[in-house]
Amino acid sequence: MVRVGVAGATGYAGIELLRILRGHPVARVTAVTAESNQGKPLSEVFPHAVGLYRGPDADGAVDPLAGAADTGAADTGAADTGAADAGAELVAGPNDAGWLAERCDLVFMALPHGAAMKLAPPLLAAGKKVIDLGADFRLRSAAEYTRWYKVEHAAVEILAGAVYGLPEIYGERLAGASLVANPGCYPTSCILAAAPLLRAGLVEHHGIIFDSKSGVSGAGRGLSLGTHFGEVNENLRAYGIAGEHRHTPEIEQTLSDLAGEMMVVEFTPHLVPMTRGILTTAYFTLRHPATTAGVIDLFADYYRGRPFVRVRRNGLPQTKEVLGSNYCDLAARVDERTGRVVVISVLDNLMKGAAGQAVQNMNLILGLDERTGLDLAPVYP
Amino acid sequence: MVRVGVAGATGYAGIELLRILRGHPVARVTAVTAESNQGKPLSEVFPHAVGLYRGPDADGAVDPLAGAADTGAADTGAADTGAADAGAELVAGPNDAGWLAERCDLVFMALPHGAAMKLAPPLLAAGKKVIDLGADFRLRSAAEYTRWYKVEHAAVEILAGAVYGLPEIYGERLAGASLVANPGCYPTSCILAAAPLLRAGLVEHHGIIFDSKSGVSGAGRGLSLGTHFGEVNENLRAYGIAGEHRHTPEIEQTLSDLAGEMMVVEFTPHLVPMTRGILTTAYFTLRHPATTAGVIDLFADYYRGRPFVRVRRNGLPQTKEVLGSNYCDLAARVDERTGRVVVISVLDNLMKGAAGQAVQNMNLILGLDERTGLDLAPVYP
Amino acid sequence: MVRVGVAGATGYAGIELLRILRGHPVARVTAVTAESNQGKPLSEVFPHAVGLYRGPDADGAVDPLAGAADTGAADTGAADTGAADAGAELVAGPNDAGWLAERCDLVFMALPHGAAMKLAPPLLAAGKKVIDLGADFRLRSAAEYTRWYKVEHAAVEILAGAVYGLPEIYGERLAGASLVANPGCYPTSCILAAAPLLRAGLVEHHGIIFDSKSGVSGAGRGLSLGTHFGEVNENLRAYGIAGEHRHTPEIEQTLSDLAGEMMVVEFTPHLVPMTRGILTTAYFTLRHPATTAGVIDLFADYYRGRPFVRVRRNGLPQTKEVLGSNYCDLAARVDERTGRVVVISVLDNLMKGAAGQAVQNMNLILGLDERTGLDLAPVYP
Amino acid sequence: MVRVGVAGATGYAGIELLRILRGHPVARVTAVTAESNQGKPLSEVFPHAVGLYRGPDADGAVDPLAGAADTGAADTGAADTGAADAGAELVAGPNDAGWLAERCDLVFMALPHGAAMKLAPPLLAAGKKVIDLGADFRLRSAAEYTRWYKVEHAAVEILAGAVYGLPEIYGERLAGASLVANPGCYPTSCILAAAPLLRAGLVEHHGIIFDSKSGVSGAGRGLSLGTHFGEVNENLRAYGIAGEHRHTPEIEQTLSDLAGEMMVVEFTPHLVPMTRGILTTAYFTLRHPATTAGVIDLFADYYRGRPFVRVRRNGLPQTKEVLGSNYCDLAARVDERTGRVVVISVLDNLMKGAAGQAVQNMNLILGLDERTGLDLAPVYP
Repeated sequence: MVRVGVAGATGYAGIELLRILRGHPVARVTAVTAESNQGKPLSEVFPHAVGLYRGPDADGAVDPLAGAADTGAADTGAADTGAADAGAELVAGPNDAGWLAERCDLVFMALPHGAAMKLAPPLLAAGKKVIDLGADFRLRSAAEYTRWYKVEHAAVEILAGAVYGLPEIYGERLAGASLVANPGCYPTSCILAAAPLLRAGLVEHHGIIFDSKSGVSGAGRGLSLGTHFGEVNENLRAYGIAGEHRHTPEIEQTLSDLAGEMMVVEFTPHLVPMTRGILTTAYFTLRHPATTAGVIDLFADYYRGRPFVRVRRNGLPQTKEVLGSNYCDLAARVDERTGRVVVISVLDNLMKGAAGQAVQNMNLILGLDERTGLDLAPVYP
Repeated sequence: MVRVGVAGATGYAGIELLRILRGHPVARVTAVTAESNQGKPLSEVFPHAVGLYRGPDADGAVDPLAGAADTGAADTGAADTGAADAGAELVAGPNDAGWLAERCDLVFMALPHGAAMKLAPPLLAAGKKVIDLGADFRLRSAAEYTRWYKVEHAAVEILAGAVYGLPEIYGERLAGASLVANPGCYPTSCILAAAPLLRAGLVEHHGIIFDSKSGVSGAGRGLSLGTHFGEVNENLRAYGIAGEHRHTPEIEQTLSDLAGEMMVVEFTPHLVPMTRGILTTAYFTLRHPATTAGVIDLFADYYRGRPFVRVRRNGLPQTKEVLGSNYCDLAARVDERTGRVVVISVLDNLMKGAAGQAVQNMNLILGLDERTGLDLAPVYP
Repeated sequence: MVRVGVAGATGYAGIELLRILRGHPVARVTAVTAESNQGKPLSEVFPHAVGLYRGPDADGAVDPLAGAADTGAADTGAADTGAADAGAELVAGPNDAGWLAERCDLVFMALPHGAAMKLAPPLLAAGKKVIDLGADFRLRSAAEYTRWYKVEHAAVEILAGAVYGLPEIYGERLAGASLVANPGCYPTSCILAAAPLLRAGLVEHHGIIFDSKSGVSGAGRGLSLGTHFGEVNENLRAYGIAGEHRHTPEIEQTLSDLAGEMMVVEFTPHLVPMTRGILTTAYFTLRHPATTAGVIDLFADYYRGRPFVRVRRNGLPQTKEVLGSNYCDLAARVDERTGRVVVISVLDNLMKGAAGQAVQNMNLILGLDERTGLDLAPVYP
Repeated sequence: MVRVGVAGATGYAGIELLRILRGHPVARVTAVTAESNQGKPLSEVFPHAVGLYRGPDADGAVDPLAGAADTGAADTGAADTGAADAGAELVAGPNDAGWLAERCDLVFMALPHGAAMKLAPPLLAAGKKVIDLGADFRLRSAAEYTRWYKVEHAAVEILAGAVYGLPEIYGERLAGASLVANPGCYPTSCILAAAPLLRAGLVEHHGIIFDSKSGVSGAGRGLSLGTHFGEVNENLRAYGIAGEHRHTPEIEQTLSDLAGEMMVVEFTPHLVPMTRGILTTAYFTLRHPATTAGVIDLFADYYRGRPFVRVRRNGLPQTKEVLGSNYCDLAARVDERTGRVVVISVLDNLMKGAAGQAVQNMNLILGLDERTGLDLAPVYP
């Protein structure tokens, strides 16, 4: 049994972590925190969670059906009226390292950038494992971090020890890691689309384009005109284009690793009127002639044995086909007329793009099968 | 191990059954059928299913992680190219009773009305259990069936033995049943909103109104102008109003059981631009004064110990709050100005409204805990 | 030429007023105001408006194609760079009566409740016409206003002079009126569904239910969790049920006029994942037997000569069928089994539910044909 | 007065043509046709059209408010019950050249490809003007047409005389033209994004990429699994990638004109869960350094005086900002890190992408101001 904390549990990535961890056979959520909702039970922030997300029993026993059993009307009433066993529901604690260290062996941090780099050092010092779903430990260079996030890095001393948690690329580094920087949703979809091609030396290093389209939940639960229903529904827009989006250096850092030289890419994000899902259309220039079948073979070989990447031989993947699951589905086509390879990658931004990948990382640093607790089929339609 | 068949696996209810059963510890899907997609592997009809839905191994062994393990790139490639182990993926067989009886102990039928009543008798005769997700065995009267469905009933001899599979109402009849008529999505949402009030004698029997609103997946995967995106998106409409919808007699039959006299209700369905979810607003006239708190207590008492009905003391339930789960969430309010009780019920039409409830019924007729394999948290947002 | 002002032009109703008035042959928008966006040109708040909404020329001349002509690239550039003629674009002024009185003959107020009752008296005193799209002048009783809106009424002296601007009901009172209370979006859809039945004495006065479903734009452009895309999309919810919504007394006031006695109704609003549109399902109890054909005749007779109410003989109206237009489409069905009439009404909440009806009211108080400038076909699909 | 026919009036482009032409001061729709809905009044196919789309009066008189006046309850009833003046509503006639030639001076053809090339020759021979919204006359080479559309061209003799109706590029050729090939929705959005750059010689001719995203109405009103609500909603997908989409040669043909040499481009279409709108993200490689401001100036200069292209100096355009209007909004950014120009273009696929542009073409061939009848503000939100 691993005692797990979720810092920032009342955001979309946080609650998704809880959904996954609820079925995890080894991890058990023992603490959750929230900045603005501190002191509230989870079901007050997310009514759908009523009866579902509960902390450890007094005696620490774990009943696999306990969660479901406790969702009946009687207990729901109890929870609402403050009856004796209501304390079992998780209540948001403070974003405090000491408080968390007392209750957890491992902490997921689903916090705005800037917060994690303050919380991580004391947790690590206390011997805890930390998986940060935010941006604070993704860029190896503190200077780059400051350039893109407009704030000094507050934990430079631990930055070098952070592992970029994209298991299909850096899997071997994760075993035993203490600090994992969980990749951004866009970078995951872009890097997985590019890695086989770069590793094989099949494509030019310059001129790579990632045209990415995301559902709105990637922007979180915070309010803004840009996520107001009337402005998003029946609408499509680009934003942060021409190198302005903060995921650009993150993509380039990993592609540089794969290519063996400094890479510069064109990354264009778009906002699509749907809640979940990212589709990236990636464009590469072939160095020498190739066929679609050959490129698909290349992808299949590269991702052989990686359970969460599915390479499609027929048809093109759609975001709905991975909704609610940890899959990244990929397809590739060679366009002989233009000498290009076009790759389509799809994932659920809250799963493989955030919480799912974070649990995959947890599994790996704990020495578990990476699929543990993550064998969730897509919810279709 | 119970060998389970899904007849009509390539519709929305069918594929949802497979999603649930994939995690069921006792049931194992050993056969699927499809009328129009016969002979095709499931992933040809539903690309998201690639690698996920597989039949029994040659040796009958069950590896809990086998599904996930087989989804990696290598095997995906194998499945697509016809390699040696490709046969493991489920392939749609014929809607044939003999073929199913050979392979299954229990059969779910997710078929258009009229088909199940032909398939069920030979399956029952062969000693199989049958759970019909369609309408063929819901109405006790063959004459009523003919009046609403415009076709003679072809299996009158087994109609009386069918149990209407709404566990929260008829749970005790389900243990050991052989033929279960799984309720319609609308009736489930309406009946659960009415049962406590009728049982308590708190409301008038006349003048009950169910104003129901459904997502589009309830209409299935078949094509029609009414489910064409351009006609549904950014649109809202009523249909089958004023007693024309076929779910009306089904609602009335169960309400009559609960009330102890013949009931007539007003049922109005609407189509909402979303994929999943039903919300029913139910209106009742109070027989004598009551308070909101008192009515909520009544609901909480009535559904005590029923794990899939959650009664809300605060706030009103929303369809998204049960999406992907088997919950039906309820809230009630007394309007003292009008002397009415207004009840809101929400459910996922493919889960508690179809496949989830069907598995709940399977659990009960097999003598299992009704939650087995159904402890799925809502996917939010 | 009537000089028109729009107070609150940067909300959804405000910008919709501008869209309609742009094609109005008699009215000309000469001033707009905005609380939070004061000093900004409209296109800074609504980029789609670039080049479209311009004030009077220096010489007051009106060129019917001027708007379109000015939208070309050159002028757009000019507007953005501060060139000489950039001043022609409307710039939001203050919500100040003096400022408005100087520039306008008639003022539309699309403001939060509480603001209009401060602005209206000085405008009326200055001899201006006022059409309030908010709630401040809808309820005849200041005490009722306070009970529902939790604030003292600040302009009781002019309340009695306000005309409730539902032209199909109170049309004759509008000619020459100075202060018009434009009805709420829900009340318009409810009252138009009920009026013919009440006037004819065909239905009981008690037990009337309005189950209304609205798109999200009715909640305006202000931010809230309830209008955050991730919370609304693929979701349906009820709110303000059992007599809690502020539109309840407004509906009851007019129905009481129509029925000749005090009416109490059940009104239930819902939020639907679409931007525009309201559909109300209205339930009435027949006093004596009637047929669907007879009731439709009744509706057709009642609304004969009313250009913006379309009574459907076949089929049921859908919200998309009136999107962008000023129509309210109606259908009615008798349910002989229950002795009820069920009426469906649809409208675009920003048009017949707000800005469109406001312009219709303006036409009537100015003595124009009520269709002037409002002959806009629905945008379908 | 120009008598206009719409062949294929019961598709989405057809009904949009009627919406626009209803307000056109010179054109009058005198005949509509439909393959599958022949003999039906328009309102039977499109209930929203009830009372709106009427043919010429017996005496040919035109009352500008006649349409609106006829939408009242009385006439609606009359239309439905077959009363004397019901014949005024447009009824779909046959796709027959003789029938159309008798009734029209100009015919819009909104038909599946293959149909227009049979209908156009006799219409032209009868001295009529023809504007084809389909693909039959877009490609100058009959061989190319056959290669992409898999059918022999049946009207090669008139192909050379067809003008590609993109007024911002070929405007001068349109005056007096008899046969106009209205561009595809995707090509319009791509070409307008590229033209200024190619004309100025600022970018490389190779390596151009158009990543386009479209709403679903572009696929028309015909049924297919790909436009079934359950498959499209909350989903995003690419299709026809890597040079497979039929709009590719159309884009290349015009870009070749602009560049002065044969062009090959990468075009990738995507389907977005919304009804209307196309957004194209276009990528170009700079030949020599440039600034964002400089490129925007270039666009502004190129489109100066073109009323339907709006160049944005600030912010990026969104599809909703042109919904229901004939605008194409453009923005451009230079990415100095990659040496690229990224251009965003948005349009309403049924307006500037189909019916709106067709009316713009009609205006030009008739010698009218191109804005005539097209001064429609976007419907926002």
